[in-house]
Amino acid sequence: MHILVTNDDGVQAPGLLALAQAMRPLGDVTVFAPDRNWSASGHVKTLERPLRVQETMLADGTSAFTSDGAPSDCVALPLLGYVDKVDLVVSGINPFSNIGHDVTYSGTVTAAMEAVIAGVPGIAFSLASENKPANVPADYGPAGEIAGLVVKKILEGGLLEGVVMNVNIPYLSVDSMKGIIVTRQGLRVYRDALDRRVDPRGRPYYWIGGEAPTGVEEEGTDVGALASGYVSITPLQLDLTNYKAMDIMKSWEWK
Amino acid sequence: MHILVTNDDGVQAPGLLALAQAMRPLGDVTVFAPDRNWSASGHVKTLERPLRVQETMLADGTSAFTSDGAPSDCVALPLLGYVDKVDLVVSGINPFSNIGHDVTYSGTVTAAMEAVIAGVPGIAFSLASENKPANVPADYGPAGEIAGLVVKKILEGGLLEGVVMNVNIPYLSVDSMKGIIVTRQGLRVYRDALDRRVDPRGRPYYWIGGEAPTGVEEEGTDVGALASGYVSITPLQLDLTNYKAMDIMKSWEWK
Repeated sequence: MHILVTNDDGVQAPGLLALAQAMRPLGDVTVFAPDRNWSASGHVKTLERPLRVQETMLADGTSAFTSDGAPSDCVALPLLGYVDKVDLVVSGINPFSNIGHDVTYSGTVTAAMEAVIAGVPGIAFSLASENKPANVPADYGPAGEIAGLVVKKILEGGLLEGVVMNVNIPYLSVDSMKGIIVTRQGLRVYRDALDRRVDPRGRPYYWIGGEAPTGVEEEGTDVGALASGYVSITPLQLDLTNYKAMDIMKSWEWK
Repeated sequence: MHILVTNDDGVQAPGLLALAQAMRPLGDVTVFAPDRNWSASGHVKTLERPLRVQETMLADGTSAFTSDGAPSDCVALPLLGYVDKVDLVVSGINPFSNIGHDVTYSGTVTAAMEAVIAGVPGIAFSLASENKPANVPADYGPAGEIAGLVVKKILEGGLLEGVVMNVNIPYLSVDSMKGIIVTRQGLRVYRDALDRRVDPRGRPYYWIGGEAPTGVEEEGTDVGALASGYVSITPLQLDLTNYKAMDIMKSWEWK
């Protein structure tokens, strides 16, 4: 099996290395990741400029490809033929959780979406290290171990066609995790606020500021699972149709 | 009613002007759009740099705000308080259709999503002008007329909470359109191909090239409706959970 490993934080991010190392026992691994951080970049496809590809090295001395394109481009380039047939795309490990509405912003998740759109299974991994002390680097060891286990289970289950798997891992030791549960997408509560400032030349500028998002910790959701110390796996789909609304709207008079 | 008009093609795009003009009979209109083209930008939120806001003028002499942020930022800034209470966000008119999987890439659609995440109704408008001859500018007149009609109908219907409306309009005169139908998201067929070239200094670079995407013209879908000359309205949701897959996966052995 040929596994493509990518992320949205850039090729030198420690979470990428942890994911690549976790995948090596499962198959041949190619790492292909952006040359810079694309967090909160959404689903970008670069059509208006050409892309460069460089060969580089991860911190463990293994080889990796990097491109000046977005995370989705780093999936598209290999799948369009830059590397040999890819059987699985894994993305991450993102240093922060991607739960609730985050999935529409997340470069980690949209890299997995890009794979699924191209007909290749895609799994996104995120670590809820927002819950660790800010002054210590994140330890991706437990998350890497879980990523290896989850990929094995998902491959055994065989349920990958058209499904984007969104995996969120609590920032705990493996022994302290409560288990792995399958969840639905929960609700994020964004607490953004507009922060108006004035530059040294007297002109205003604006930060999208405010507090970090929270979530509605409902049972059965990704938000709730993480908050309770579980690994959360949410199967996502690319069909965004609201069928309930569709049925209601079909009865409306449209002329 | 206060209507915010935005897009992903930039403040000087003719489709934005057509949409703003179509909204003026329905309420107070504020135009707030990116200062450049962000097509295929996905759902971007700018958190790592501050944003500038300028006042500018549309081609009809009316006032507009523009920012160096992404389409979603041009929704977030007003909704976070840059302008007074907004009751509805409309996005577009995009010069090309946004159907099938396009919705995850589309800046037009994600601008409407950003509104819905913030609790404000959001409607995205796209015109299938990819079907017009390439050497003539697109006529947004019919699409503007349809946009006005569709917004009125959707407001009457009242079904907007949590629903992102994705409206695609065929490139036809209003009389030639077959009607307005409510659809589900169809399937796009992307025909991207990797185009390797060599620069004047002998180094390779890569275009994501290939032919324009097509779609599976199935009845009941956005793709099928557009192909048959109908205006397509697809209600989208922000919950991407694949519930069928979720139920199956819950029965798997996870340890």
